[in-house]
Amino acid sequence: MDYDRYDRIRAVQWQGDHLRLLDQRLLPQEERWIDCSNAAQVTQAIKDLAVRGAPAIGIAAAWGVVLAAKQGEALEPALAMLRAARPTAVNLMWALDRMKARIAAGADAAALEREAQAIQDEDLAANRHMGELGAGLIAPHSGVLTHCNTGSLATSGFGTALGVIRAGVAGGRIDHVYAGETRPWQQGARLTMWELVRDGIPAKLIADSAASHLMRSGVVQWVIVGADRIAANGDTANKIGTYQLAIAARHHGVKFMVVAPSSTVDMATASGDDIEIELRDSAELLAVAGRRTVVEGADAWNPVFDVTPAELIDAIVTERGVIERPTTLAMQALFGS
Amino acid sequence: MDYDRYDRIRAVQWQGDHLRLLDQRLLPQEERWIDCSNAAQVTQAIKDLAVRGAPAIGIAAAWGVVLAAKQGEALEPALAMLRAARPTAVNLMWALDRMKARIAAGADAAALEREAQAIQDEDLAANRHMGELGAGLIAPHSGVLTHCNTGSLATSGFGTALGVIRAGVAGGRIDHVYAGETRPWQQGARLTMWELVRDGIPAKLIADSAASHLMRSGVVQWVIVGADRIAANGDTANKIGTYQLAIAARHHGVKFMVVAPSSTVDMATASGDDIEIELRDSAELLAVAGRRTVVEGADAWNPVFDVTPAELIDAIVTERGVIERPTTLAMQALFGS
Repeated sequence: MDYDRYDRIRAVQWQGDHLRLLDQRLLPQEERWIDCSNAAQVTQAIKDLAVRGAPAIGIAAAWGVVLAAKQGEALEPALAMLRAARPTAVNLMWALDRMKARIAAGADAAALEREAQAIQDEDLAANRHMGELGAGLIAPHSGVLTHCNTGSLATSGFGTALGVIRAGVAGGRIDHVYAGETRPWQQGARLTMWELVRDGIPAKLIADSAASHLMRSGVVQWVIVGADRIAANGDTANKIGTYQLAIAARHHGVKFMVVAPSSTVDMATASGDDIEIELRDSAELLAVAGRRTVVEGADAWNPVFDVTPAELIDAIVTERGVIERPTTLAMQALFGS
Repeated sequence: MDYDRYDRIRAVQWQGDHLRLLDQRLLPQEERWIDCSNAAQVTQAIKDLAVRGAPAIGIAAAWGVVLAAKQGEALEPALAMLRAARPTAVNLMWALDRMKARIAAGADAAALEREAQAIQDEDLAANRHMGELGAGLIAPHSGVLTHCNTGSLATSGFGTALGVIRAGVAGGRIDHVYAGETRPWQQGARLTMWELVRDGIPAKLIADSAASHLMRSGVVQWVIVGADRIAANGDTANKIGTYQLAIAARHHGVKFMVVAPSSTVDMATASGDDIEIELRDSAELLAVAGRRTVVEGADAWNPVFDVTPAELIDAIVTERGVIERPTTLAMQALFGS
């Protein structure tokens, strides 16, 4: 397929002595880059959501460890600091565990740099492979709905769920794309639409609450989403609203696909009940674009992830293969115990 | 019950020679009033969403006819202009039909003024009665979720769904209230939270996409919403997102209540398939608080209502009584042919 046309965005860029991150809080109005020279700056960028998306967070954290090594920082505290930046995305833990294993094996800064580069390169290759696997499940001329941003911005490039959509569009499987705006942070509105318009993919933004009305109209055959953590039984933690889309999809006979690299799978977590759901500041719901929209004295409940039970998922697509109708048995076969 | 504590807001006020409307576009930041001296100004206020909520639109339109009569305007064109202001809310048509019947019977401006006042007074009485009927369905110490704004702002006062919530709180049936923010216009965030905080009712705002995650946690026993049009079989058109909540409620065993005056029932519309759904400008989704949030060149799909099929509704509450598990037969028994 035509990778050149559909894979031009790189939001996490290693510059040899520092890490450049495209500040995703300012898109699409402004393309401003953040230069990180040490692990603390990378940690802050993850905490502040300047870099976001489970795979991209893991990659950025790996580079954070490289920066700590190059600066001669103590590596254990740097690992701990980076690990605590976000609680839900398992890729963060996975990437840091890979770096930690290299450190334990006596790797120097140059070897750690090679490991971080490998993590980044493998992610891109995984995304391209998942794109082909996922698109293969979709009938020609389908419509799809996606949620949040799972594209080049959220990964090393190409994307997970959005990678499947890119591959599906390139291969004639997907005719039109709908993107949920994804309150409160508007990743769908700000980031996914930015990627889709840049790639010339026919797309329409919808309010998150319009998804069921859209499905009822019959123009969508698949909901395609990413994941922040997949438990051993296939239960999937992802951006708040994913679970609601899965319920609506099942109600309408629309298929539901989760796309994530195997580093998102956490076989040590038995089910979704064991996944910690990050609650963020209620201020994110009480103001819009920096302007208070809700009366003073009001409170809000702001969970930023939810868990979709495996029984509502038709396919989990990873670079190791596809699991249809996930079960613990099928997960174990592909991902070991 | 303590009406004084829970019924202090009047957003549509007849002043003897003009109509005062609380501009709902500016709440909660600013309480600015709009004075309308003729039918064209009332029409514009309805079109611009300065006044919104199906019952409030009907009441405002009735006063628009009174203003036309007082100004010596031709009444037929004024009726036609007001009727075209919003397509989905049947209360608008219902109120204008009442005024038209009085005109046909030779009513003068003073008689039309009495008719508009009757429409407004009857709406308030209906809301108080519905509040008691609806609250009677709710077990003590329940949690409820509501959508959009169906309160004093959307009616002559007290509210429809929010009236049931007020009555439920006053009577000890409801312990806590969750309000969906209701993108794109944020009626839940801006208006419902404003009413709830003013009344001292314990409430939390949620993203529309967090509703299913909330229901799964078990803290909500009822979803309570208003209606813009109820068809002869009980299918209900209401704010976009209502249908999605009904699907999620059924999935979780949460009950779903629609609260609306009988003027919202349109027995001439056989089912939801026959209800015109208003599509509004995509710009409402592409900008937030006046600031463009989506990349230039992006498109959006912005239906502002959807239809909830009767089979997902546990109770329709009107001032004429409650219909549980609505059917065409039960609807005919209460609302005639």
